[in-house]
Amino acid sequence: MILQPIIDIAEICAQLGVKEVVVSPGSRSALLTLAFVRHPAFRPKVISDERAAAFMALGMAQVHKVPTVLICTSGTAVYNFAPAVAEAYYQQVPLLVLTADRPPEWIGQWDGQTIQQQQIFGQHVKSSMQLPASYQHPDEVWHVQRIVSDSFHQAISYPQGPVHINVPIREPFYPQAGEVFAYSKNLRVRKEIGGQKQLNEAQWAELTHVMQDSPRKMLLIGQQDEWELDSYINELSQKGWLVVSDVIGNCTNKEAILHSDSFLPHTTNTENLRPDLLITMGKSIISKNLKLFLRKHKPTHHWHVAAEGAIADPFQTLTQVLRTDERLFLPELVAKSSQGDAAFAQQWKKLEKMAINQNAAFFEKQSSGEWAAIYTAMQTFESGNLHLANSMAVRYANFVGNRKKSVRVFANRGTSGIDGSNSTALGSVWASKVPTLLITGDMAFFYDRNAFWHNCPMDKLCVLVLNNHAGGIFGLIDGPSQQPELEEFFETNQALNAESLAQEFKLGYVRCQQMTEVQEAIVSFMQSGKGQIIEVVTDKKQNKAIFQEFKKQMQQALAEINR
Amino acid sequence: MILQPIIDIAEICAQLGVKEVVVSPGSRSALLTLAFVRHPAFRPKVISDERAAAFMALGMAQVHKVPTVLICTSGTAVYNFAPAVAEAYYQQVPLLVLTADRPPEWIGQWDGQTIQQQQIFGQHVKSSMQLPASYQHPDEVWHVQRIVSDSFHQAISYPQGPVHINVPIREPFYPQAGEVFAYSKNLRVRKEIGGQKQLNEAQWAELTHVMQDSPRKMLLIGQQDEWELDSYINELSQKGWLVVSDVIGNCTNKEAILHSDSFLPHTTNTENLRPDLLITMGKSIISKNLKLFLRKHKPTHHWHVAAEGAIADPFQTLTQVLRTDERLFLPELVAKSSQGDAAFAQQWKKLEKMAINQNAAFFEKQSSGEWAAIYTAMQTFESGNLHLANSMAVRYANFVGNRKKSVRVFANRGTSGIDGSNSTALGSVWASKVPTLLITGDMAFFYDRNAFWHNCPMDKLCVLVLNNHAGGIFGLIDGPSQQPELEEFFETNQALNAESLAQEFKLGYVRCQQMTEVQEAIVSFMQSGKGQIIEVVTDKKQNKAIFQEFKKQMQQALAEINR
Repeated sequence: MILQPIIDIAEICAQLGVKEVVVSPGSRSALLTLAFVRHPAFRPKVISDERAAAFMALGMAQVHKVPTVLICTSGTAVYNFAPAVAEAYYQQVPLLVLTADRPPEWIGQWDGQTIQQQQIFGQHVKSSMQLPASYQHPDEVWHVQRIVSDSFHQAISYPQGPVHINVPIREPFYPQAGEVFAYSKNLRVRKEIGGQKQLNEAQWAELTHVMQDSPRKMLLIGQQDEWELDSYINELSQKGWLVVSDVIGNCTNKEAILHSDSFLPHTTNTENLRPDLLITMGKSIISKNLKLFLRKHKPTHHWHVAAEGAIADPFQTLTQVLRTDERLFLPELVAKSSQGDAAFAQQWKKLEKMAINQNAAFFEKQSSGEWAAIYTAMQTFESGNLHLANSMAVRYANFVGNRKKSVRVFANRGTSGIDGSNSTALGSVWASKVPTLLITGDMAFFYDRNAFWHNCPMDKLCVLVLNNHAGGIFGLIDGPSQQPELEEFFETNQALNAESLAQEFKLGYVRCQQMTEVQEAIVSFMQSGKGQIIEVVTDKKQNKAIFQEFKKQMQQALAEINR
Repeated sequence: MILQPIIDIAEICAQLGVKEVVVSPGSRSALLTLAFVRHPAFRPKVISDERAAAFMALGMAQVHKVPTVLICTSGTAVYNFAPAVAEAYYQQVPLLVLTADRPPEWIGQWDGQTIQQQQIFGQHVKSSMQLPASYQHPDEVWHVQRIVSDSFHQAISYPQGPVHINVPIREPFYPQAGEVFAYSKNLRVRKEIGGQKQLNEAQWAELTHVMQDSPRKMLLIGQQDEWELDSYINELSQKGWLVVSDVIGNCTNKEAILHSDSFLPHTTNTENLRPDLLITMGKSIISKNLKLFLRKHKPTHHWHVAAEGAIADPFQTLTQVLRTDERLFLPELVAKSSQGDAAFAQQWKKLEKMAINQNAAFFEKQSSGEWAAIYTAMQTFESGNLHLANSMAVRYANFVGNRKKSVRVFANRGTSGIDGSNSTALGSVWASKVPTLLITGDMAFFYDRNAFWHNCPMDKLCVLVLNNHAGGIFGLIDGPSQQPELEEFFETNQALNAESLAQEFKLGYVRCQQMTEVQEAIVSFMQSGKGQIIEVVTDKKQNKAIFQEFKKQMQQALAEINR
């Protein structure tokens, strides 16, 4: 077979430990497709809309922490991968993107499905390689194999992320009749064993010194779903540390503060809440109020822990980057930290407790509205993966919070787009095989409706659609809500409901009005596991009134504990 | 207003002659949106799915030949524009893409909807500029204004194409209560008057010399929809020139050869058809058989006419680029050309006539099948814009051909993607206000279903969906049809039909089986102008058999005239 090195890519990926493959059909990519389809290690999913396909691959890789192989043909197909590739880059999710291409001499010659694919994802991939287009010389074959191995290791090394391999393929690119199709034996596949970066005693001595001088200690956990943080948080709490996170931090320990977004805007004397030392790890946080608080009340020291990669400074506070592995850092921190100011942590915990009680009291009284539906669904969903779509759903859910260890929370907060939440959740189902609840608004839901356009199973996926017939979030933000053009040019009132979509794609469908109905629908899904859509139609004016009432009551509750 | 220069972008665009604006809602882009929404020169369309929005903008600009302004918020929204931007680049359609962004210091800091937007479209835009983020210094204001003017002129100059302006906007980005919102008076807007490149007498003398030595003269018209070619083709034909084009060349003169794709593969003695001199103008051609013929029977001379821009060499034959305007070149060519070998042109015309007769005879006998539906629809559609989707529809349509001057043909053949054909056709309707027939397959149709997700009118659009429940084109190509994985991994059998989609989006719907029904449906659309979908469900095995029978009969007909 002339294109043997292309076929062997699948074998190399199998040996390296790739688990999942998503293919979008095409002619130029046919041999890549066949290479993975015929390999016993893989059962590729076939998805026609490349935008959806790439988000599905992302959802799979979120679960496995191993690159999903993503295959498409040449041309704009590649650009349709780009939204998910950018999300994967910032969310640090590994993808191995294989894009078929014409050989270089045919680029820009008006042949069909031909664009400039080299480096097409710009700064949104960890590496971008071009395979050779011929394999006459043995060095070229070695080059193909080397690029595949290297790219895989790039994708999987910390911080994980997408890599791109552009694959020029000359015709004829279908196996000819009678041609042998087999994977090469004895391929030399390059493995990598990853060492871990550790701080030495001298470095710790310096840090310990600073910790001693910083009684008010805060550990802030950004988005993550990998680390078992529980025992560390217990120990750190005993040492007087304050641990803060939000719903995407998968931080379920009862000592952790998860509701800063609720209480911070209404808290007086926030200067008392200022930490001396802030340690951050993980990726982004959702809470705008926490960001504003930290930007205003800057800690004296802010250390960020990350073994490699670019470092963000979301609070404009960073003073020290610690280049070490979080899993090595945490036990050392527990061991070496001096006792913190317990009163400081107590202040935060008092506010947290008040916010939790206030939440419960408030929502027990709500019989309708999108926020109550989210609260009810999150209370009822007992175990599995919880996906939170941008932008309304994840923000509401962050007010609710999650402390169930049996629920793992995901959200596309790398770039916070609305463009692939259905697809990501479905990819998550396929990889994890656990019941998955996606909470989403109508904009994100209909935007990604092609998530359901394929022949793959959709069991174990439950989508809770909060349909306010608009991009209702704009009405909740001060700026746009004051513009006379709000309804026409921002909310873009939408008449659609999810029922016809559910029918078209043969998904279960139930429309709920009362919160008891939402509860029943989630319970029924947990029992049956059948793919279904739960739609809660709400009124955006009512939602806004509820949100304002929530804030008002929170403010009153805070005034009382401050009294 | 602090952000006055942002507001003035709309005023500058109005003065430069922008006609259409497409907006995808977002917060960061709110002020850009308001600037265009409030300007009396514009009535922006609001489209939530940026991928669809960008193809709509493309469809509008295809009609006007003036840049459509396209606005989105920051983050992956921008990447969703990319497929249409790439198509616009290669199809040479002008777009002015305004993408809101965070100011540079906030890129990569884990804020929401933030990616690396500078230069994001890579080599698929004619220019890519970054506006300043503050306007403290008057030079910065001048910079904003200059970039907008320059980018507009870049987009509109030959060859037209998309340009990108990235627009960082600092908060607060909504007008505050009481703030005056008005466009600046006396803005200095830079206009451009475009000269035309013309060949001089000495250059023409050389060309004339070559023409005299090249009796077999072929003029090949690639994709274009602007030039009035009729009188030139008449005159060139009288001088013994052969004019060849295909359905996207909008070349309706009866002397032109439009059916080379039908007869070339079955013609013996193709060496006799070889031109001595080939002159090409316009963009791509569809006919694979014409490409293969010219690559095999290379003309001695191949001149391509294009005043500016990169030049493609699709037949591997190019010897001379003529940097002149086509509209200046053609009358000179008519005037200066020596008499060609009329017998050479006659050979081609004999084959063309045979193909036309054979087509008519063949299709009059077909009462079903996707190809007959396309033939019937193209015969029946009397006047308006005809959009041909990739990849099956446009190829079939090219076998049929179009000689109606009242029908203008469009197809996204810049990159030949299936990703935005519904949206492009709808943009075309909005800009042209004439009845528009889109012929498409089920893959392209469902891929771009979000084309219908908005509150804009959909009258004057008729979509003929040829539904073979699969990417049936793979079954027609030799390579994939021989693979056992054909049905599962290439055709991806799809159970959907268009009816529920039509219901959901309140479009008229009619399902046709017989060709008389297709005819009636098109006539009814022409009379009522109501937005509607005509679905013809076909069997892909039968389609394949018809295609093979067509080829067989064409071959027989050719054998007869060769006898």
